Amino acid sequence: MNAVMHKPSVEHETTVAAKARSGRGNAIAVAQFGLGPIGIEALRLAAATPWAWVVGGVDIDPAKVGRDLGELTGEPSLAGARVYHSVEALMRDVRPDVVLHTAGSRAVAAMEQMAPMVMAGVSVVSSCEELLYPYRRAPRQARAFNALCEHHDARVVGTGVNPGFVMDVLPVCLTGVSRSVRGIYVERVVNASTRRLPLQRKIGSGLDPEEFRALFRAGKAGHAGFQESAALVAHSMGWLVERIVETCEPVVADHDISTDHFQVRRGLTCGLHQQVEAILADGSKTLKMDLKMYLDAADPHDAIRIDGDPAIHAHIPGGVAGDAATVAALLNAIPRLLKSPAGLRLMTELPVPSIAPVI
Amino acid sequence: MNAVMHKPSVEHETTVAAKARSGRGNAIAVAQFGLGPIGIEALRLAAATPWAWVVGGVDIDPAKVGRDLGELTGEPSLAGARVYHSVEALMRDVRPDVVLHTAGSRAVAAMEQMAPMVMAGVSVVSSCEELLYPYRRAPRQARAFNALCEHHDARVVGTGVNPGFVMDVLPVCLTGVSRSVRGIYVERVVNASTRRLPLQRKIGSGLDPEEFRALFRAGKAGHAGFQESAALVAHSMGWLVERIVETCEPVVADHDISTDHFQVRRGLTCGLHQQVEAILADGSKTLKMDLKMYLDAADPHDAIRIDGDPAIHAHIPGGVAGDAATVAALLNAIPRLLKSPAGLRLMTELPVPSIAPVI
Repeated sequence: MNAVMHKPSVEHETTVAAKARSGRGNAIAVAQFGLGPIGIEALRLAAATPWAWVVGGVDIDPAKVGRDLGELTGEPSLAGARVYHSVEALMRDVRPDVVLHTAGSRAVAAMEQMAPMVMAGVSVVSSCEELLYPYRRAPRQARAFNALCEHHDARVVGTGVNPGFVMDVLPVCLTGVSRSVRGIYVERVVNASTRRLPLQRKIGSGLDPEEFRALFRAGKAGHAGFQESAALVAHSMGWLVERIVETCEPVVADHDISTDHFQVRRGLTCGLHQQVEAILADGSKTLKMDLKMYLDAADPHDAIRIDGDPAIHAHIPGGVAGDAATVAALLNAIPRLLKSPAGLRLMTELPVPSIAPVI
Repeated sequence: MNAVMHKPSVEHETTVAAKARSGRGNAIAVAQFGLGPIGIEALRLAAATPWAWVVGGVDIDPAKVGRDLGELTGEPSLAGARVYHSVEALMRDVRPDVVLHTAGSRAVAAMEQMAPMVMAGVSVVSSCEELLYPYRRAPRQARAFNALCEHHDARVVGTGVNPGFVMDVLPVCLTGVSRSVRGIYVERVVNASTRRLPLQRKIGSGLDPEEFRALFRAGKAGHAGFQESAALVAHSMGWLVERIVETCEPVVADHDISTDHFQVRRGLTCGLHQQVEAILADGSKTLKMDLKMYLDAADPHDAIRIDGDPAIHAHIPGGVAGDAATVAALLNAIPRLLKSPAGLRLMTELPVPSIAPVI
């Protein structure tokens, strides 16, 4: 193939891109960056979404590059869309309106990966946890990236179920009818036995408790993006954060536990108990979040308490499931993001979350 | 005072308006249209809101025209702002950025009242229940009004607690992480004994049950805006509504009830049970809402059930209080509305609801 012939200009549009535009009317052309389990799941949901037209995927894994997405996902309707080794390679063949980015938790790395997309004017919805509120850990880079997005008329947002919804966007939403808010407390208990392998691994299943603590301190275990949830809520309340204190302790199995993926003996780690507290400049306000994810957890739920006028307690028995819903959060954000002003957006700046209807 | 001298042009800006701009930095200049109980309550909350600068009020009641808002509301910080008999009269003296409109439930009447504001480029947040989704009862007028807003660069939205939040915006928000939604069911039970006189009256307290039924059929009793809640949810889901069936039955007191405002004997009306069901073009989807507001109601609550993938049940014990929170919903919508594109907006088009922080 001749790269010069296939650069993404209107004149040299390829068959696939032309088909994407002409054959699908108002459909939104979507490319998937990162073909791990979440990326594959996102593609399957996109295949079932009338307004989404999947034009290709990107992954650095040589075993995936060149393969057909129909075959890789088991979704016949994706046949003809291919896996490329880079965004640049994909853009020589097709022109996505938006990229779904599911490759890593770190804001700085994500923004570096997204820069070529943004510079081509392509918008991005990302599952990168730190991107929920990138000003927390990478304020300088986030401001520069926001300027890059504005300059190239691209929109980027980080979202998901957690972070991205239950512990941040939903609590903020509940304050929409508040006269005053003194404090916000969010609690989530996840029964990890019902969740897939990567989650059971990241909560430390089967590790010696000391080993888990060391991994958490090294940033290699635990729930990513928790500080970002707290920072986004504080930002939305107009509360100035002095610092955020984050702790994570192993939950130790009090009985032998067996899942599809792990055998955890009594005394070993079967999950985590992670907490964040934002220390606010206004000492009269409080903001705390409490997350337990462990095997055989009893009474999984999400609970949000708005201390204020009026007081609001919201309870979601069972909790919002993270795995399948995460890719829905990504897909659902696309139409709202594309209608928003250019820039590095926050979820709270987009219109009210909603399943994206047929458009 | 010479009206010609005080027309709202930049050159002839009056002292009050100049003070509003120069003295309050980035404050948003707010005028109140309708000085009934809700309007007065909105002004009191605005007086306590750092970013809001109250510049005046409008009411047709001759007993109120000309009075000082500081004296009328008991809020010393509002002293100097006056009550005018019309928007035109107010605009000769001051230039609001936004008007809080709390005068009636009917969309057509509200749009007529708002037209002079919009034509002056002034935005409006309204408690008018039908304005939540004006395309339900007044599609032609709503489209024309939207065009008027766009032409004059004004923004208008209808909101509140119910309609405006618990039975429409919040259920929509919960679908933000949905892969698919088959049905939505929302239930609200309000203990009207704890609520103020106008609510106790509109639910029919003390009426003969047949008298209540006749009043509801005549559109003179019951909860306004219920069909609009259902229509807004259906719109957000992309569900085509064939028709909406609304019913309202009196709740009959099974014991003598005494409140601060009413004595209701056993056998008489102590509240209402109102239901809406949207009949959808896609018969596989369901959308139902159930509202009970009655004196001495046990277990007041809000409950939202999203039938879909994932299933989500949210429960708010006690429910979101309507009276005090309604004016908060109005105030909180202002900053989000002013950042939105010009037009007649829906709440679901504005960014995620949030208490409006200091700006």
